[in-house]
Amino acid sequence: MTQTLIEKYEINADMGEGFGRWKLGPDEELMKHIDAANIACGFHAGDPSIMLKTVRLCKQYGVKAGAHPGQQDLFGFGRRKIEVDPKDMYAMILYQVGALKSMLDAEGLELSHIKPHGELFFYMLRDEQIMRAVLEACATFRVPVYGDQNDAEEAMCNELGIPFQGEIYVDTDYTSEGILLPVSASKMATPELCYERAKRAMSTGTGKSIDDIVFNFDFKGKPFTICIHSDMPTVLSNVIELRKAVNESNETRRIGPSK
Amino acid sequence: MTQTLIEKYEINADMGEGFGRWKLGPDEELMKHIDAANIACGFHAGDPSIMLKTVRLCKQYGVKAGAHPGQQDLFGFGRRKIEVDPKDMYAMILYQVGALKSMLDAEGLELSHIKPHGELFFYMLRDEQIMRAVLEACATFRVPVYGDQNDAEEAMCNELGIPFQGEIYVDTDYTSEGILLPVSASKMATPELCYERAKRAMSTGTGKSIDDIVFNFDFKGKPFTICIHSDMPTVLSNVIELRKAVNESNETRRIGPSK
Amino acid sequence: MTQTLIEKYEINADMGEGFGRWKLGPDEELMKHIDAANIACGFHAGDPSIMLKTVRLCKQYGVKAGAHPGQQDLFGFGRRKIEVDPKDMYAMILYQVGALKSMLDAEGLELSHIKPHGELFFYMLRDEQIMRAVLEACATFRVPVYGDQNDAEEAMCNELGIPFQGEIYVDTDYTSEGILLPVSASKMATPELCYERAKRAMSTGTGKSIDDIVFNFDFKGKPFTICIHSDMPTVLSNVIELRKAVNESNETRRIGPSK
Amino acid sequence: MTQTLIEKYEINADMGEGFGRWKLGPDEELMKHIDAANIACGFHAGDPSIMLKTVRLCKQYGVKAGAHPGQQDLFGFGRRKIEVDPKDMYAMILYQVGALKSMLDAEGLELSHIKPHGELFFYMLRDEQIMRAVLEACATFRVPVYGDQNDAEEAMCNELGIPFQGEIYVDTDYTSEGILLPVSASKMATPELCYERAKRAMSTGTGKSIDDIVFNFDFKGKPFTICIHSDMPTVLSNVIELRKAVNESNETRRIGPSK
Repeated sequence: MTQTLIEKYEINADMGEGFGRWKLGPDEELMKHIDAANIACGFHAGDPSIMLKTVRLCKQYGVKAGAHPGQQDLFGFGRRKIEVDPKDMYAMILYQVGALKSMLDAEGLELSHIKPHGELFFYMLRDEQIMRAVLEACATFRVPVYGDQNDAEEAMCNELGIPFQGEIYVDTDYTSEGILLPVSASKMATPELCYERAKRAMSTGTGKSIDDIVFNFDFKGKPFTICIHSDMPTVLSNVIELRKAVNESNETRRIGPSK
Repeated sequence: MTQTLIEKYEINADMGEGFGRWKLGPDEELMKHIDAANIACGFHAGDPSIMLKTVRLCKQYGVKAGAHPGQQDLFGFGRRKIEVDPKDMYAMILYQVGALKSMLDAEGLELSHIKPHGELFFYMLRDEQIMRAVLEACATFRVPVYGDQNDAEEAMCNELGIPFQGEIYVDTDYTSEGILLPVSASKMATPELCYERAKRAMSTGTGKSIDDIVFNFDFKGKPFTICIHSDMPTVLSNVIELRKAVNESNETRRIGPSK
Repeated sequence: MTQTLIEKYEINADMGEGFGRWKLGPDEELMKHIDAANIACGFHAGDPSIMLKTVRLCKQYGVKAGAHPGQQDLFGFGRRKIEVDPKDMYAMILYQVGALKSMLDAEGLELSHIKPHGELFFYMLRDEQIMRAVLEACATFRVPVYGDQNDAEEAMCNELGIPFQGEIYVDTDYTSEGILLPVSASKMATPELCYERAKRAMSTGTGKSIDDIVFNFDFKGKPFTICIHSDMPTVLSNVIELRKAVNESNETRRIGPSK
Repeated sequence: MTQTLIEKYEINADMGEGFGRWKLGPDEELMKHIDAANIACGFHAGDPSIMLKTVRLCKQYGVKAGAHPGQQDLFGFGRRKIEVDPKDMYAMILYQVGALKSMLDAEGLELSHIKPHGELFFYMLRDEQIMRAVLEACATFRVPVYGDQNDAEEAMCNELGIPFQGEIYVDTDYTSEGILLPVSASKMATPELCYERAKRAMSTGTGKSIDDIVFNFDFKGKPFTICIHSDMPTVLSNVIELRKAVNESNETRRIGPSK
């Protein structure tokens, strides 16, 4: 059975991004505040033991567990451009998501979604063959694909029969055309800014760019998911403000606008 | 549904043991002569693209596709002793087998079996906690586990509710106690010797050790699977003789012994 | 020209033990308090950029730069047992130390010493062939080899014509026979305990084991180097107390015992 | 002391391009026919043991030993585009060449030259910062850098005070502008073609492009080195013809042109 789109605003975060002896991000503390975890699959971060531990945290906190495949690049944390043959890419995505899925099977959980990590996401937007390779691999698992809202990916997901779940970021920046900027090109966000940006996006469907231009996210009134970077030093303060914003908007949405 | 044991003598071989630019073994030629392939999962050999290619060869030739997880050791080809915490081992097996399973899903094939590779198999025999970690991970997939015939593993498989499928080798040696020797400690086998050893095992249930002592394989009349090393220079000649032996014994078995 | 042994008590610490995006230990803060850095060479930790950065920190703070080769085991941080052929080990040590040495050359620094990391050190003590392989590789560089004081290694260093520099630890434990215990088998040390242990060792040449038995370090009055683990959470407090102890003992040593 | 340029035509070949259990190319047979080996340093191919074995073959056959650093890409054999920060690249080159140099030290050989491998060479031509990072690292070793003849690299080598040694290929193709094509874009060369191309280049200084246009190599009468790909199936036949061509031209060069 194919998993479906979300029905209220949600928060997702990248999880399990350590490796061996090295830790990254306050995973367990974050789990209390989010709806969905994107679990690194060992290519840009994560190892089998960290993956399994993260799956069990999802189970413990009732958080949806999704796969977070990336470029094969531990040194660069999946944030460097690496040329991949589309046939290799298709196999690499099957490999990573399948590896995670077996751990969910072992723990009796469903795979919730797939979200391409970092440079892999930008690669898909730049190269249609790569986008197709990634999404065809994702289609094997019949779950929604998460990505920063964009028409090209949504159209290809529709063609392949899997849902595309648009998301936004509130702790990194956008260009005035509404194009997501990498972490390295963004300013550091405060918790207050995370709250404001989330509220603006949920109530008006708009964002403000790095140079202060208002743009449309174009979700057509449908709920979306908001991603938070778990490796920012301020992530715990950020997520608390973001949770507040999301809860408020979901409450408004549930009871409808006041007359 | 749990996969079941084999009902006639079979041949299995390790497959997909190249990496990137490097090839190993005449996989496609071998596929014509075997019943089951043990596909390397990227830890001791194999990469996602080679795995997928091997899965497709299995589909093309009607060969059963099993997982061949190993120690995380590309440099040592999974033949070196590496200390692994049992909890890490459990996760590593889920990771590898899950990675392969997604490719079988993508191609519409079933996972046939799991066979631990090289030193991983010997590690299981030496260390009960490692055996349990590996077999508990295997139990998630509910398929038979292949291994050189031994009571300890068979008993633990029974306990965990998965079939243990005993196998023998005809191109490497055994001690006089019937303990399998690593490739490095064995003499090179000729195709004729492969044929003779296979016939002896299938007709009398016995083997001859490296020092020429006859020992019992202890299959109690049940059919077993015979493994052939795909990375030996003589493998194609070996497998042709072995195929002949297996076909003859299966024919005899089918019609019963002559009066 | 062969480097020589130290002439006063010193402090050494493992450095550069991050990898890519992942950090470990407060390297720059520590540099102000130590005499010698053992720089990870990319096998158990470290990558080329971290190595070069650490070399430059050594230059900036006037700290001696040594190589800290380890087992090829990023996942296990070089703390797992991995079987290595002595011939492979010899090449692996040349590889790692040579990689670091070129960075020292580029910065105009000398290679000060070589100190095998973690399980590699314990492997040397367990296996004479491995000890020989490691030390023969070290002999190419003609610098002292640092290691927890032991007769076997000292004798082989003498045979190979390189100095062996004994060291002690004050933040991990020893058995009552004076055998160093791995971090995982030791109790957490306080800064006060680091100070006391250092003073005791420098003034009396003795240590106290994990079960409170006094044993001899057997340095025969020669100065030694004291290692501190840079990845302990309390390392900065530990090193400050240790520095105090070492300075006091060096001062006493310089002016001689009071009448 | 800085190594100097070659004084007669030479043949170089990439060597030591296996990894662990996997072999590539008939290294030992080739050694008899070449003047200089470019030894893979473990990033795109090679491991410490293969590197040391190759160094010893160089010693045995009196072949000059150079470093062949590459992109960190075992899966793609250093032939894929990977984005590297110039600071990381500088450290990666020091790391690889230093690793090899220590093995040459251990065997009493000099480092002869450095030749960037595959995509790393093309990356240098595309990106001036990368070229500078690579060549600044090379300058530490004060040996000639080998590369397909080009003005940009020659000029930067001059600026950095190291010799640039131009080379040509006779088993892969060139564009009509004299730009070297990757293996994947070239036609398979016959031994006869290798001979003809080498003779043409040495006697007239010209090449013929993939579309049969004559272009100038622009060596201004100086001898150059000719590279042969050791991983082509026909390499042994190719090198025999090439050796013949090179010996003939060196003989002519020595005695001067006939009147």
